[in-house]
Amino acid sequence: MSNVRVIEINKSVYAANEATADETRAQLREKGTFLLNVMASPGAGKTTTILKTMELLKQAAPDLSIGVMEADIDATVDAEKIQAAGAQAIQVHTGGECAMNADMTRQALDEMDDLPGLLFLENVGNLVCPAEEDVGSMASVAILSLPEGDDKPLKYPLMFSVVDAVLINKIDTREYFGFDDAAVVERIHKLNPEAPVFFICAKTGEGMADYITWLCKRIETFRKNF
Amino acid sequence: MSNVRVIEINKSVYAANEATADETRAQLREKGTFLLNVMASPGAGKTTTILKTMELLKQAAPDLSIGVMEADIDATVDAEKIQAAGAQAIQVHTGGECAMNADMTRQALDEMDDLPGLLFLENVGNLVCPAEEDVGSMASVAILSLPEGDDKPLKYPLMFSVVDAVLINKIDTREYFGFDDAAVVERIHKLNPEAPVFFICAKTGEGMADYITWLCKRIETFRKNF
Repeated sequence: MSNVRVIEINKSVYAANEATADETRAQLREKGTFLLNVMASPGAGKTTTILKTMELLKQAAPDLSIGVMEADIDATVDAEKIQAAGAQAIQVHTGGECAMNADMTRQALDEMDDLPGLLFLENVGNLVCPAEEDVGSMASVAILSLPEGDDKPLKYPLMFSVVDAVLINKIDTREYFGFDDAAVVERIHKLNPEAPVFFICAKTGEGMADYITWLCKRIETFRKNF
Repeated sequence: MSNVRVIEINKSVYAANEATADETRAQLREKGTFLLNVMASPGAGKTTTILKTMELLKQAAPDLSIGVMEADIDATVDAEKIQAAGAQAIQVHTGGECAMNADMTRQALDEMDDLPGLLFLENVGNLVCPAEEDVGSMASVAILSLPEGDDKPLKYPLMFSVVDAVLINKIDTREYFGFDDAAVVERIHKLNPEAPVFFICAKTGEGMADYITWLCKRIETFRKNF
């Protein structure tokens, strides 16, 4: 069977998620761990994007240690994929919750043997709940895949308002899906004027160089203030 | 601007969603309205599937009146598409809630001028929350699209356990996405042995005949007991 480490999370007893988020962030800062909260619909390509990001970071930031926290309602398939790629991964089961929150993140952090320089949190596949919870991360990104359609920022405005960057994934499927690049960028920037929007294919790495540069800059800034 | 009717829902004050669901169902039964709860991830093709179903039902059940209740966090794009196709549609805004529940459905029903023989509820795009709430429907379906991957029943088991049928959509994109038909059927049937699984392309109507037959049979049974 799978040898993935699974953390069964107890529903948070903290009403004040915000305070817990700041505590979690302080705890991570102390360890020098940059936590990136990765959010998207089910099947938008979160795991594939994380895997390709790790691969590209090996060259861009060879000294950076990387780990992944996989949050799901059930199963361990994503953590297995990450482990198969040779990285540290733990699987968090959210007890049916539709998103991670700061206390759940802390419970999971407490179970990790050592904290890496960059820790991805692959949140539950969902465009609603995860946007409502500060998990204590240093930055967050939303991934929107072409097959989902360019109207998603209209329907799920909070998600596209709270993130630091948006990745538009699966651009290799363009011939199958009507998708208006300019419209999606305009819709995102109406909600979140400063957020960069990267058009990528996580499977091949196409378009990811700018995203890697952006991410490295964020981590560098974090480390300077460390 | 849009002339779509928008219902701003107040968060339910009922703790006992189950009782409200039964009441809502009784209210619908009295009017002879079959409510079908349509659930899926964002961008899986709920609106397109509903539109194609309506088109095919015009031939299969020409006397059946049809309406659509569109539930979203924000926007009216889906209700506009339904109206453009000539059908009755109302837009429900869930006040940030990640799913409809029975009381919210009832609030929306109260705003409808007349209830059709078949009412689609296009739930919020989400594989977690909508599965937890009985909206008072007579049947429910989940749509899973090929680009999302065949592992979704593993990660979101409740959704695939509670529905009466599963539609696997966007089969026309098969060459782009690795998707194991047999594996997904096995994973669904492990959770929900009786649920039929239909492989469809909602855009073209491919594979939808069996689904239409199934739906018509459900509506017929409902009417016999009416």
